[in-house]
Amino acid sequence: MNVYFDNAATTMIDEIVEKEINNINHILYANPSAMHRAGYLAEEKVKESSEVIANIINCDKSEIIWTSGGTESNNMAIRGYTSAYKRVGNKIITTMIEHASVFKVFQMLEKEGFEVIYIDVDNNGHIDIEYFREIIDERTILTSIMYVNNEIGSVQKIEDIGNIIKNKNSKCAFHVDFVQGFAKYKVDVKKSKIDFLSISSHKFYGPKGVGVLYKNKNLRLNPIIIGGSQQNDMRAGTLNVPGIVGTGVASHLAYNNIDLEYNNLKNLKNYLITKLIDINKLYDIIIINSKCDDGFAPHIISITFKGIRSEILLHALEEKGIYVSAGSACSTHDKRISRTLKSIGLEDALAESTIRISLGKYNKKEEIDYFIDEINQLIPKLSISLKHK
Amino acid sequence: MNVYFDNAATTMIDEIVEKEINNINHILYANPSAMHRAGYLAEEKVKESSEVIANIINCDKSEIIWTSGGTESNNMAIRGYTSAYKRVGNKIITTMIEHASVFKVFQMLEKEGFEVIYIDVDNNGHIDIEYFREIIDERTILTSIMYVNNEIGSVQKIEDIGNIIKNKNSKCAFHVDFVQGFAKYKVDVKKSKIDFLSISSHKFYGPKGVGVLYKNKNLRLNPIIIGGSQQNDMRAGTLNVPGIVGTGVASHLAYNNIDLEYNNLKNLKNYLITKLIDINKLYDIIIINSKCDDGFAPHIISITFKGIRSEILLHALEEKGIYVSAGSACSTHDKRISRTLKSIGLEDALAESTIRISLGKYNKKEEIDYFIDEINQLIPKLSISLKHK
Repeated sequence: MNVYFDNAATTMIDEIVEKEINNINHILYANPSAMHRAGYLAEEKVKESSEVIANIINCDKSEIIWTSGGTESNNMAIRGYTSAYKRVGNKIITTMIEHASVFKVFQMLEKEGFEVIYIDVDNNGHIDIEYFREIIDERTILTSIMYVNNEIGSVQKIEDIGNIIKNKNSKCAFHVDFVQGFAKYKVDVKKSKIDFLSISSHKFYGPKGVGVLYKNKNLRLNPIIIGGSQQNDMRAGTLNVPGIVGTGVASHLAYNNIDLEYNNLKNLKNYLITKLIDINKLYDIIIINSKCDDGFAPHIISITFKGIRSEILLHALEEKGIYVSAGSACSTHDKRISRTLKSIGLEDALAESTIRISLGKYNKKEEIDYFIDEINQLIPKLSISLKHK
Repeated sequence: MNVYFDNAATTMIDEIVEKEINNINHILYANPSAMHRAGYLAEEKVKESSEVIANIINCDKSEIIWTSGGTESNNMAIRGYTSAYKRVGNKIITTMIEHASVFKVFQMLEKEGFEVIYIDVDNNGHIDIEYFREIIDERTILTSIMYVNNEIGSVQKIEDIGNIIKNKNSKCAFHVDFVQGFAKYKVDVKKSKIDFLSISSHKFYGPKGVGVLYKNKNLRLNPIIIGGSQQNDMRAGTLNVPGIVGTGVASHLAYNNIDLEYNNLKNLKNYLITKLIDINKLYDIIIINSKCDDGFAPHIISITFKGIRSEILLHALEEKGIYVSAGSACSTHDKRISRTLKSIGLEDALAESTIRISLGKYNKKEEIDYFIDEINQLIPKLSISLKHK
């Protein structure tokens, strides 16, 4: 049995999306910047996809910028905005649990002279809204807070945060990394007072290498990739029309069934956690870092197995065809202990014994049963403390 | 009849490439940064593609950086290098006919305080090598010169230039925009002393949204997109594995048959130009800006039709199903007169009456016959001077 439980890292493309991409590859392959009709038709298709996203998040299609992925969208919003508005103020706010593509940009800006506040989170990975209300002030030009955390699935109260920002300082821009939230949550950028929103297509069965940045049309942004005048000079480079169209289709599919898919994922998550709690009655080594309430996303489950290093467990599971992620593990190349797991208060030894299961629409209850069976067999074999008993 | 003569803008994906992408979409969809075997297998596939490119240009596969396209590669090389080495010197050199994704970065760097020399070209779009030898000096940290110009197809003597650079100042880095040259010319980065080389997949029947930057491993580069530790911290973001694999396949196909395809294109170009010269005996309004010698690429033909505005001709041709590009026209959104056409000495009125035909491997002799027939009928209808005769 092959069980892919790493959907927060990336998903398999939907066949409907792939079919449409292949279709576009042959009938609309022209460069949308071209002046001829073939280019015009390709450009129209891009606009259609922009409109799909715009309708989902409640903005104008002219506010959609196509990028190469969530990382570029995050970089672009934060660097592009602070670079354009640095004369207005130099305080910026983010959280301790942001994705590296946000966090590292803030660290870079800090080196460049910005005053950066990194808000800590509680044991559930949530920021303290009242603390946030205190620290945001007239000098703050940008706040960046992720919707769903990629390691533990904690969900921030984005609408509350947006309203606090604009009440305290209407000129402070609000960026939301929505990469793990899109296709799981409905968001209204107007209602939540969001100025920049990052989306990544391959997280919801769309093509890899395509992202979106929603940009409030009243705000300026210094582009980070320049050259041709594509996308109103906001992002140069030939538009990836098949990828953009595929993203439009994937977005449509996701939001057409969003309540159903949310509930399916949530049911799977609840089922998995119930089973884990059962197992734990035997072993008492499991900590679930992702609760089954509205404070957490339905697809990400962080689990600590005390005394079993995540790498060991991960490779033991892969022997059984089960693919999970270790801790943060957006990358094999970064061996440091996860910032997020530290921030929720896990000691190093526990953080190093944490795996992430991330569910997707192709996962089934039987796969969870299979995983639970294997875990049941692996725990006695792998746990240092249990082995010594 | 539908005739696509805009292959320098973008090409239709090769079906073999598309098939391989679809294959990877389903069997290797995992994130190559993931620690599990599915991730490892995806990473191996990325390495295989890096090796294909590395073998073609004679570098190590670790020197291949995957990007979102030629524009990003150009931006990254120039901004990333000047940012890392600005303390060493502040003189940088480029040409007047570079693609906007190079030229605009130099303009930006000029505003930031760099001394920029924009080398002019002769009537054939070639730089004066002796002049270049004079101006490059100890203070010059970077020279960026394109291999094949995208509007008129002029080819620079890259190997000679590379050797002059390193003889005059071994510490000056050499960047080559190879976007229109890849799959047409063989290049050896060692022999030509190239430190950075930009490639774009969709120009040679690969997928859109994928590019390559070759980076000499002895030189540093400040990345422009940061976050995850992918690609040795040089370019953050989940790798687009299907797109990268597709680029590897497209590169392999291109270089497997490069002599044959070069000759096919050259024969088509010669045929087209011979026919145009024939027509011109009747009308005397045609100027060919791209000669049939080794100073020009085999696929790009810039043609001026005196007295016929390129937009008019372009739309008249598209009525007949023939797609060409107007002047520079990488973009409908930039209406300024082409820098390249000005640089080769075309007056504004002539530059505005210039179209670009760019051939590809799917074009056939019959399509040129069809184009010539249509041109023969359109000239008397559209030419202002002829209409008044």
